[in-house]
Amino acid sequence: MKYVYKFGPDGAEGEASMKELLGGKGANLAEMARIGLPVPPGFTITTEACIHYFRTNGELPEGLDNGVEEALRDVEKRAGSRFGDPQNPLLVSVRSGARVSMPGMMDTVLNIGLNDETVKGLAAKADERFAFDSYRRLIQMYSNVVMGLPREDFEDILERVKRKEGVKYDMELGPDALKEVVEEYKEKVKDKGLKFPQDPLDQLWDAIKAVFGSWNTPRAKTYRKISDIPEDWGTACNVQAMVFGNLGPDSGTGVGFTRDPSTGEHGLYGEYLLNAQGEDVVAGIRTPRLLANLKDELSEMHGQLLDVARTLEDHYKDVQDFEFTIQSGKLYMLQTRTGKRTSQAAVRIAHDMVKEGLIDKVEAIRRIAPEQLEQVLHRRIDTSAQVKIIAKGLNASPGAATGEVIFDTDEADELGSRGEKIILVRLETTPEDIHGIVSAQGILTSRGGMTCHAAVVARGMGKPAVVGSGGISIDMEREKFVAGDFTVNKGDVITIDGSTGNVILGEVPMVDPEMGPELLELLSWADDVRKIGVRANADTPEAASRAREFGAEGIGLCRTERMFNDPSRLPIVQEMIIARDEAGRRKVLDELKPMQKGDFKEIFKAMDGLPVTIRLIDLPLHEFLPNFEELLVEVTKNRMNGVKDEDKELMLKRLRELMEHNPMLGHRGCRIGIRYPEIYEMQVRAIIEAACELQREGLVVKPEIMMPLIGHYREMAMLRELAVRTAGEVMDQFGERLEYKVGTMIELPRGALTASQIARHADFFSFGTNDLTQTTFGYSRDDAESKFLPDYIDKRILSQNPFEVLDRDGVGRLVAIAIEEGREANPKLKVGICGEHGGNPSSIEFFYKTGLDYVSCSSFRVPVARLAAARYSIE
Amino acid sequence: MKYVYKFGPDGAEGEASMKELLGGKGANLAEMARIGLPVPPGFTITTEACIHYFRTNGELPEGLDNGVEEALRDVEKRAGSRFGDPQNPLLVSVRSGARVSMPGMMDTVLNIGLNDETVKGLAAKADERFAFDSYRRLIQMYSNVVMGLPREDFEDILERVKRKEGVKYDMELGPDALKEVVEEYKEKVKDKGLKFPQDPLDQLWDAIKAVFGSWNTPRAKTYRKISDIPEDWGTACNVQAMVFGNLGPDSGTGVGFTRDPSTGEHGLYGEYLLNAQGEDVVAGIRTPRLLANLKDELSEMHGQLLDVARTLEDHYKDVQDFEFTIQSGKLYMLQTRTGKRTSQAAVRIAHDMVKEGLIDKVEAIRRIAPEQLEQVLHRRIDTSAQVKIIAKGLNASPGAATGEVIFDTDEADELGSRGEKIILVRLETTPEDIHGIVSAQGILTSRGGMTCHAAVVARGMGKPAVVGSGGISIDMEREKFVAGDFTVNKGDVITIDGSTGNVILGEVPMVDPEMGPELLELLSWADDVRKIGVRANADTPEAASRAREFGAEGIGLCRTERMFNDPSRLPIVQEMIIARDEAGRRKVLDELKPMQKGDFKEIFKAMDGLPVTIRLIDLPLHEFLPNFEELLVEVTKNRMNGVKDEDKELMLKRLRELMEHNPMLGHRGCRIGIRYPEIYEMQVRAIIEAACELQREGLVVKPEIMMPLIGHYREMAMLRELAVRTAGEVMDQFGERLEYKVGTMIELPRGALTASQIARHADFFSFGTNDLTQTTFGYSRDDAESKFLPDYIDKRILSQNPFEVLDRDGVGRLVAIAIEEGREANPKLKVGICGEHGGNPSSIEFFYKTGLDYVSCSSFRVPVARLAAARYSIE
Repeated sequence: MKYVYKFGPDGAEGEASMKELLGGKGANLAEMARIGLPVPPGFTITTEACIHYFRTNGELPEGLDNGVEEALRDVEKRAGSRFGDPQNPLLVSVRSGARVSMPGMMDTVLNIGLNDETVKGLAAKADERFAFDSYRRLIQMYSNVVMGLPREDFEDILERVKRKEGVKYDMELGPDALKEVVEEYKEKVKDKGLKFPQDPLDQLWDAIKAVFGSWNTPRAKTYRKISDIPEDWGTACNVQAMVFGNLGPDSGTGVGFTRDPSTGEHGLYGEYLLNAQGEDVVAGIRTPRLLANLKDELSEMHGQLLDVARTLEDHYKDVQDFEFTIQSGKLYMLQTRTGKRTSQAAVRIAHDMVKEGLIDKVEAIRRIAPEQLEQVLHRRIDTSAQVKIIAKGLNASPGAATGEVIFDTDEADELGSRGEKIILVRLETTPEDIHGIVSAQGILTSRGGMTCHAAVVARGMGKPAVVGSGGISIDMEREKFVAGDFTVNKGDVITIDGSTGNVILGEVPMVDPEMGPELLELLSWADDVRKIGVRANADTPEAASRAREFGAEGIGLCRTERMFNDPSRLPIVQEMIIARDEAGRRKVLDELKPMQKGDFKEIFKAMDGLPVTIRLIDLPLHEFLPNFEELLVEVTKNRMNGVKDEDKELMLKRLRELMEHNPMLGHRGCRIGIRYPEIYEMQVRAIIEAACELQREGLVVKPEIMMPLIGHYREMAMLRELAVRTAGEVMDQFGERLEYKVGTMIELPRGALTASQIARHADFFSFGTNDLTQTTFGYSRDDAESKFLPDYIDKRILSQNPFEVLDRDGVGRLVAIAIEEGREANPKLKVGICGEHGGNPSSIEFFYKTGLDYVSCSSFRVPVARLAAARYSIE
Repeated sequence: MKYVYKFGPDGAEGEASMKELLGGKGANLAEMARIGLPVPPGFTITTEACIHYFRTNGELPEGLDNGVEEALRDVEKRAGSRFGDPQNPLLVSVRSGARVSMPGMMDTVLNIGLNDETVKGLAAKADERFAFDSYRRLIQMYSNVVMGLPREDFEDILERVKRKEGVKYDMELGPDALKEVVEEYKEKVKDKGLKFPQDPLDQLWDAIKAVFGSWNTPRAKTYRKISDIPEDWGTACNVQAMVFGNLGPDSGTGVGFTRDPSTGEHGLYGEYLLNAQGEDVVAGIRTPRLLANLKDELSEMHGQLLDVARTLEDHYKDVQDFEFTIQSGKLYMLQTRTGKRTSQAAVRIAHDMVKEGLIDKVEAIRRIAPEQLEQVLHRRIDTSAQVKIIAKGLNASPGAATGEVIFDTDEADELGSRGEKIILVRLETTPEDIHGIVSAQGILTSRGGMTCHAAVVARGMGKPAVVGSGGISIDMEREKFVAGDFTVNKGDVITIDGSTGNVILGEVPMVDPEMGPELLELLSWADDVRKIGVRANADTPEAASRAREFGAEGIGLCRTERMFNDPSRLPIVQEMIIARDEAGRRKVLDELKPMQKGDFKEIFKAMDGLPVTIRLIDLPLHEFLPNFEELLVEVTKNRMNGVKDEDKELMLKRLRELMEHNPMLGHRGCRIGIRYPEIYEMQVRAIIEAACELQREGLVVKPEIMMPLIGHYREMAMLRELAVRTAGEVMDQFGERLEYKVGTMIELPRGALTASQIARHADFFSFGTNDLTQTTFGYSRDDAESKFLPDYIDKRILSQNPFEVLDRDGVGRLVAIAIEEGREANPKLKVGICGEHGGNPSSIEFFYKTGLDYVSCSSFRVPVARLAAARYSIE
């Protein structure tokens, strides 16, 4: 078994395709070496060695020692120095590298090979200050990563020495001071009953084991859980000759993207620090300069980087995120990987790369995860709004977010998990803050750059973030921050705009997103290949117009009860509900009809030429009445005060009559239409009158009348008869003939199981997968998501929330049964889905495979659905 | 097409098997004629003629007139008199007769053939008083049945003349008074603008049409709806020579059963009135004598009746219910039919007939409708209870009932439909009271005999009834009755005991029914042939013992939450629920464990040797807390009064947290076990400890641990692991090995749809068809049955309440899927059902066909299930 793969300036044993074995970093180091980019020599220990290490409870596989030693000799040869040589010591880095990037989650030890002897050799060969600074860094990292000592203990020593020397920055410390730090560091280790090993090989092996072990830190486990990374992958370990960016003004280190990862704009994008080591950049402690400035400071290096970036993109056909170090005027590439990008950038890049001939259209569609599109369609701050900007920072992750300011990560997690909207405010974030970031609406930091931890993580999660906002001064202890004249305390509400970097006081009006030209073109390519229709769920004329703009090919669900909920109509509806008999209801329905008809006309106009599926009223009637608890308290108080409010008493009585133990399974849906046919009759009349009037005006109206919650074919037969009779009467009255359909939601298990009976009375089925999920699982969504579902997902009983991702084994099976048997009974049956799953990409895959004619989802998800439908049609 | 079938003393054209064509009465008149019993000559007009009459909107079929006239000539010949002959007139009766008996629902006209002329001939031939009394009766019936005039108008005239003559009874009126009545009757008809027809043939045809038409009276329609009799059957019409029981002291009329229809006891049973017409008996106006007394009054007739009864039973192989008339010392049979009987009687009769060699065991099982057994198992009044008997009546329909006294039929219907328990109290009942009887718990009348309307109808419905309670004096107007010293007002609560005839003041303690030796033997025959197991649902040791007595072969469902609900434990449970963490819960669980263990031990003891399926806790936790509304009102009042009750406030807060929108679909079932494993762990520990202790004592314990509400195999896998681990620990502790099973309820559609996955982790499935019906239909039972289900059944959307009779298309399909796929995945899987459908005969048929191993139902239904299982196994 080969456990060690070498790479260097003259080629490599591995290659990019070997990520499983070599991890992402190792595979790409090998690939860069292969295509001639300047990579310091080194070798990768495979993930299999790591897995072996775990399986055997900490034993390294046989032959690994020889492999490493042989590879180390090879590195020595290529580097021209020797490991442990007191005169000319080779220093190496030991870095983790899993199959997929887990930024900041695992450990690294640099400068391995330094000890009390070799440090002198390095000092003689390079510079004394540099040598002892390197040694200091090694002991500090080693103590923390390998020995598990607290980082703070060593920071304290450094701070003390800096104070003593009267300096502010580490780099201002002279060689003697650094020697003192080294001695104190070693003392500190000794105080803890440990010893910093002087044998470089001991250092190396301990570091390798520590890197393996860092796969299992709590923060790494949390990250894998969130990112759905399997536990058993393990990490590879990369050992590589050190190159130093802190050897003087012609040295430096930096990270870059071949295009702007935030906007997708063309051109080198990134940051660097001269005379610094890589960790200084990533940790976000010193604020680095933009790569554009390198042109002025080290113009040749800038030119080389541009060449490298072009080579990388030409080779990888995608944006690359790379790390480099310049050691005394020579460029070294330390890492490359596919660049994470915002969704906006992903769209632009995919689009541009087609135009540049790098990829084809199908590949462009494949490049955008449909989920990403949701972010593009994030709401943003209304530019016309008067807002109070109190600070600015870097626009690290786009989108706007509003919430209460919280400084403590655990508290942010707790409040956020409970559904409170919060903004996590930190000096900077570290991997330990990951749970707080997950639970927050957005992140604000006072330190760090575009590639600092907070920025990278937030972009990955599609969460708005403003980082490095130097204008705010955070007092962590008192839990407040000051921005100019303003003091913001814990619990105050702010808004951050991750697209502009603005920090704004209070809540701010937001506007709906628009789609840029790149996205529109990309979606048009998607429309060319997709084989399943996309409609929108829209209840108002405005929503209908928006749906059309977003490319919906019709309305798949127009919920008429939303129209009843309008504040101006609510009293009328309440009157209808309190009415004791049909005559009373009819009187009120006569008032409601013109209102509904007006709504329908507007919606039909907006959707001229396209089908509009209108669901007759579904909700339990008592939902239109006042809150029971409030009313009860009020009436109780009135009674105690001797006040007799007859109306309130009557309302309470009626409410009690209408209240249900399980309204979800109660008197709702078509059950209302069966019990009070006059309500459905009014609605059908309003629909057909609206359609007839518009048809007369020359519009093309295609109403589809949908009966909710059908569980028995006789319900459907009875309501179809009602609809057809009523529509016939109206059409006769208008002397018009309309093309209209009458169909049903399939949202009950029994509806699906008896689809063959129901299909005989229906022109179409539309799956209401939300309710179908509720009844199939026996979950009340309102209760489940706040009570036990999080626990279920946590305990891995469910891999996903079934209200977000369709459950194929249970709900999906019912859908498949209904489609197959429904079509068999009625070959003309049209079949769609209008539950929230209609906009969920993974669910769309299922719907596509199951043979649905269309999916319908909320307007904002229409582009997502178009793209998802295209992807699955391609596959 | 032959529309008329003749019968008479010398044979018949029809026979008993021709009920569809000739109706029950007509077919059996023919059959009696065939086997030589004395039947007055007559003929039957077929149901087809009736159906034709309806289809053509009132036209009689072609050829019917000739058929009737020809048959009439035949009757004249056999009777020796002529229709319309002024000297020797033939009188006939015209009676309805549908396929199945609809007692009192349709119309009859007697004495047809009398007019102003023929009445004189009859007077000359027989007796003047008798002739005019017969004429009076004809006009009275004819006016009501054919002309639709109110009965009361004629009753009033009769009453007036009786007052004038100073007599109390009709029979005391002399010929002149009767002539006056006849004249006044004719005047009354004339007053209404009508005329009583003098042509006997007009009378005959009008009466035939009226009989046909009476199929469609509202009361007949109501009866058919209740009894599930198709509307399109129609009725036959029987025309038969009159025989008279009112020709003097050697005449009489009566009804009888070949065995006691109430107890099944052997021997002639019935009632008669001398010198009376049949209507006097059935209408319940005069209280008749028991048939036993006939031996003293007309000994020869009694002997002949005994012979007839034996002939009938030998021929029909079943108990017969017959009508007879004795005309001047000669016996005539007017009707026979299968005797309706109480369920108790049905059991005894089926049993005895096997012993007598009349039928075989399989036939005996077929003879008992499983539904009837439920009545046998009715609760009855605790004989040890101190009760205040205020009156006695006839024990017309067994069983005891308690309720508020209501006198008005409509009011009884309204209150009863709303679920109020009421006792309908009437002077006597008529077919117009049918809806009130349906809605009442029991019936009490002051008049009528064992075969009066109230008695017959109540027995048919299995509803307790006490009739002819002469000791009570009812004031209908003031809505009260007096019984001795007691006055009972409308709304007062009484109890009637239909088994003893007692009327008791107030509510009375009841005891559970016992099974008599005949039933036990019958059920043992059933056990011999049935092929599906029967278990009981029982939650307490008492219920377990009873289940065993009733023949349960194990417990299919023991609900542990019922044990938590015990008043002495409730505070402990509430403490557990309010506990904020696992430690708090464990503390309380330690207190609960010995209690549960004690329960389990008692149940295991009662079921020694038989399996006991114990369902771990299922209910939503908040159901164990106080009522929210009451608590809210209390806390609101406290607050207004400035009282601070911390405990109540805390409870309200916790209650609000625990409250769910749809508790049925909320945090219940195995979701509690997943969230709080310590609760299930305690329960498993209690079960296995109880079992181990008893096994040590030499008992055979077969616990089956059942997880409720499983919807995903991972739930099952996790909880099985918990159960097996815990059981293992306990068994190790005891050093015992137990045979135990771990399985699941299948009560969610997803559970059924993914049965193949779940079965891999389960030893058994038990279908919870109640919950499965709720989720498959999307019906909350609590809401549906009080809100829309009655409407659905009324509108014929559903033919039955799916919570009572299993829905085969939807719920049944899921059951079938789960059994097939579950067994495929795990061939050892045991499958049962423990929902309420387990005791429903029609559902048992389905379960038998679907291949379940057993059904489990409430103890009282175990005998029903045993019988039903046998019936379907025979078929």
